[in-house]
Amino acid sequence: MDLAILGAGAVGRSVADLADDYGHRVVALADSTHAAVAEEGIEADAALGRKEAGDPLGSHEPEAVFDAPYDALVEATPTTLGDAEPGFSHVERALADDRHVVLANKGPVAERYDELRELEAASAGSVRFEATVGGAIPVLSTIEDCTPESVTAVRGVLNGTANFILTRMAAEGLDYDHVLAEAQDLGVAEADPTFDVDGTDAALKFVILANVLGGGGFSLADATVDGIQDVPGSALELASEDGRTIRLIGEATREGVRVGPRLVPENGALAVTGTRNIVQIETREAGSLHNSGRGAGGPETATAVLADVGRLD
Amino acid sequence: MDLAILGAGAVGRSVADLADDYGHRVVALADSTHAAVAEEGIEADAALGRKEAGDPLGSHEPEAVFDAPYDALVEATPTTLGDAEPGFSHVERALADDRHVVLANKGPVAERYDELRELEAASAGSVRFEATVGGAIPVLSTIEDCTPESVTAVRGVLNGTANFILTRMAAEGLDYDHVLAEAQDLGVAEADPTFDVDGTDAALKFVILANVLGGGGFSLADATVDGIQDVPGSALELASEDGRTIRLIGEATREGVRVGPRLVPENGALAVTGTRNIVQIETREAGSLHNSGRGAGGPETATAVLADVGRLD
Repeated sequence: MDLAILGAGAVGRSVADLADDYGHRVVALADSTHAAVAEEGIEADAALGRKEAGDPLGSHEPEAVFDAPYDALVEATPTTLGDAEPGFSHVERALADDRHVVLANKGPVAERYDELRELEAASAGSVRFEATVGGAIPVLSTIEDCTPESVTAVRGVLNGTANFILTRMAAEGLDYDHVLAEAQDLGVAEADPTFDVDGTDAALKFVILANVLGGGGFSLADATVDGIQDVPGSALELASEDGRTIRLIGEATREGVRVGPRLVPENGALAVTGTRNIVQIETREAGSLHNSGRGAGGPETATAVLADVGRLD
Repeated sequence: MDLAILGAGAVGRSVADLADDYGHRVVALADSTHAAVAEEGIEADAALGRKEAGDPLGSHEPEAVFDAPYDALVEATPTTLGDAEPGFSHVERALADDRHVVLANKGPVAERYDELRELEAASAGSVRFEATVGGAIPVLSTIEDCTPESVTAVRGVLNGTANFILTRMAAEGLDYDHVLAEAQDLGVAEADPTFDVDGTDAALKFVILANVLGGGGFSLADATVDGIQDVPGSALELASEDGRTIRLIGEATREGVRVGPRLVPENGALAVTGTRNIVQIETREAGSLHNSGRGAGGPETATAVLADVGRLD
């Protein structure tokens, strides 16, 4: 397939890098200020090299990607809340042109799912978004294969930064501020870690899952969300004396979404360590399925994007 | 899709039972002696009720399923080794008629993979076999999504009976013969548990995985296989003193297949308990993915069969 990639952060860059291995061609790649466009396939290495060097990625306006002869738009611009712009408009434009859309941007599917499905219904293109939930971990495809109707709930850990912090606090007996600073030094936490530690990032993913299970109807405003900022080291010590630990656990059902710190068995499936993510998919016919892996990262998330591209008709 | 189901054991029955939930219709269902066939869809409940009561499932010869107007053959007859008959001939016949084939029977994909792929290449139908590896756990679809080329190895536990026995031996300090008898009472082990405890069943699954990774070339004869019959209770005790336990671990790479009892960390990912299965998929770009769940059972395996049907063109 011919891909147009919007967003040249870690995910967009990795998709451009790996597309060829999956038998696809990148005909356009844009960051927020420039685009490289070429009908016969752009030279992704060269374009990304220019960006790396501080030069424009390409000679076009970003909007030029929509004029490229692409089959599928890869929307990998940063997630925004509320109106989910400009991501939502990008998706709208591609669908209006009867092209497929593969999202790595969580905003449109978390905040405006119902509108998105309406636009998709009116388009010859379809929308896929495995990369928005759990990076390389096959979450949405597993639900699709079991059929969403037969899945009763999805629980788990879908924020690696929060999980890293809780893991380190428990293992080293360190307090939150100390471990957060360490995580920032390691590049595991961003300079502004708010959305990771206050539960917003995990909540967006569980909102997407609730939309998939229930056929829509949810946005971030419907989620009950608590973060990990106020978990004291002493709570982790107490938990440990009882063979348990604390994780930032989310849950999506047809009834709603909850995310917050929860006690879980120290050696149980949900107590993944470090930045690892896990989902536990409860099914009616097939018991409980656990999928775990790296929930973030450029190549990891790009793998999910390209798996979606492979599933387009 | 219209399905013809060969085999009316736990898996075939569950596929017949659940097909409607997935939007498919069963036009033929056969056990080893009789078949029910109806162009407008058979009454699966009634047919299975007759079988339950000791009466013929239907009024046709089993071969009559091939004359039904089916889109996909579900081959769910018992796995056989060597020539993998009669399963292989069933698959051959359906492909010769340009129909799709979904296998729950491991024989043809473990023992005659290359021939099967040749027959598929000459047919308008395609072959899928998620149900042959790990029941409801998405194993082959995860590899397909990452692309087989980017998967370097698959390891894990793919026999629930052996895992149950080792789990009980470790937890209760009981010996192999005692736990095996208990497992047989519980219906977890069959009257003749040979293929489960000697590693053959797990090896067949890892041979299938090696074929998927390497594009064919493997059969059971190429696997190095040890079973759990000779694992003494004392070995589990020694392992436990060191924070480890013993599991029947298989490994598939492009170089080959090995299955045998191995020491693993007691609280590590591979030490699943009871009849649970787990695979660890090592990828080049996306790290290590762990998928676990119920690796056997009628509805669990039928879920995988129907997921495959959903992925047919």
